[in-house]
Amino acid sequence: MKLLRFGANGAEKPGLLHIDGTIRDLSGVVPDLAGAVLHPEGLAKIAATDAGSLPLVDTGARLGPCVAGTGKFICIGLNYADHAAESGLDVPPEPVIFMKATSAICGPNDPIIIPRDSEKTDWEVELAVIIGKPAKYVSEAQAMDHVAGYAVTNDVSERAFQTERAGQWTKGKSCDNFGQIGPWLVTKDEIPDPQNLPMWLTVNGEKMQDGSTRTMVYGVAHVVSYLSQFMTLHAGDVISTGTPPGVGLGMKPPRYLKAGDVVELGIEGLGRQRQDVVADQ
Amino acid sequence: MKLLRFGANGAEKPGLLHIDGTIRDLSGVVPDLAGAVLHPEGLAKIAATDAGSLPLVDTGARLGPCVAGTGKFICIGLNYADHAAESGLDVPPEPVIFMKATSAICGPNDPIIIPRDSEKTDWEVELAVIIGKPAKYVSEAQAMDHVAGYAVTNDVSERAFQTERAGQWTKGKSCDNFGQIGPWLVTKDEIPDPQNLPMWLTVNGEKMQDGSTRTMVYGVAHVVSYLSQFMTLHAGDVISTGTPPGVGLGMKPPRYLKAGDVVELGIEGLGRQRQDVVADQ
Repeated sequence: MKLLRFGANGAEKPGLLHIDGTIRDLSGVVPDLAGAVLHPEGLAKIAATDAGSLPLVDTGARLGPCVAGTGKFICIGLNYADHAAESGLDVPPEPVIFMKATSAICGPNDPIIIPRDSEKTDWEVELAVIIGKPAKYVSEAQAMDHVAGYAVTNDVSERAFQTERAGQWTKGKSCDNFGQIGPWLVTKDEIPDPQNLPMWLTVNGEKMQDGSTRTMVYGVAHVVSYLSQFMTLHAGDVISTGTPPGVGLGMKPPRYLKAGDVVELGIEGLGRQRQDVVADQ
Repeated sequence: MKLLRFGANGAEKPGLLHIDGTIRDLSGVVPDLAGAVLHPEGLAKIAATDAGSLPLVDTGARLGPCVAGTGKFICIGLNYADHAAESGLDVPPEPVIFMKATSAICGPNDPIIIPRDSEKTDWEVELAVIIGKPAKYVSEAQAMDHVAGYAVTNDVSERAFQTERAGQWTKGKSCDNFGQIGPWLVTKDEIPDPQNLPMWLTVNGEKMQDGSTRTMVYGVAHVVSYLSQFMTLHAGDVISTGTPPGVGLGMKPPRYLKAGDVVELGIEGLGRQRQDVVADQ
């Protein structure tokens, strides 16, 4: 299934992309794509619904982030060997984790807002894993039982805030609208091999990132298991698994976003995003 | 006012500490200590209530974290000059920020759970600032208008996870039950000068930390203003403002928590916490 949330910011309703390409309203079936709805039983309830009988949604509706109730927005740093190289850093001996503020989360086509005093706002297409069932101390073999599905994320990053403004990356990762998630939460049954998904990102139509989850250093099952050794993962938590090469920071000279740019990105099977870049007011 | 939440984990109700020392049930007045209830108007509504007429709560009730709906649990690193020194680090030129997972949040007297494979679980008494009104790009002069109040936090930290396990502190800061918050959210009217509060922490009755917010490098108003330059702060967000000297890491030799230890901590005017240290199962 391709699950989504539609409507005005903060007032989104749950929906799904029907097989005929229409968007259907799920709000009569589940309250939102959050918490227990993401558990295997909750997803089974949606799967048992006759989607064709659900109310049609205007295809022009705004899409919100495809998951709600996200308590943690965890990112894996330097998880593609080539991206580590372009950042001038070694592949870490175990996953590097950092957090984005959940207040950065927005819809897949919501604008990238360049924060005040930013000169180095950058892009990162990433595969996000969405937790469906709480996970603590789970093995790699058990890990996938705790995954609801996948989505595209843009891990927008301000490089000066991230690395030139006194310690810890969070500062450059957490600005408002720095975390587009969607368009869809694609349930894991539709993605038999999450480690073989082509992914791409363009700026003003020019291809910047052209990679595949095949070159991910620490794969999805490993990352879920690894994180669960440190903290309980809850339904709705989002793990963004790192970006392949081609970010602005890695170019010679570096290239960053400016108001008026258009960023598009996607992952095979998970849909695409399109963002206007705007200056903050 | 001293606001609190009582009841079983995950099912807490809002309450307050009445002037006569009893706990009163606020659940007939406000739904929880979250979101708009923390706005100035929400707090005014509670203040206008005749607390003595509210239902009595069993004084043996468990206390939960004194705030709900926390989207961000932000910490300021190395924010006391002497603590930076004991950590072998310089005072940073601007605030260092990192995040704890909100899933680490628990009640003030809930146990400290030593995670599996931990050998360096440490303590940190801190003054927490609780946001009452959204803040973005606010000046230092405006910042206090966005603060609902204060609480004691224990920023429990696993030092090996934090600094010896590949990049970024989050990993050692986010374990379950690594964030006791409470007992009370003390509204800011009761704390005229947050930069002059004695604070302390003991382990098994032995004084380990004995400091004051007077030696904080970046004060409350500065920190709120600073953070709001990077991201919108929302009602219920918690900012833990750093710890004074006396953590286990800074001792020679370092000293860490073990199952059976008892940690007590407090800040003048904000109450005290008591935690049993237990091993994770």
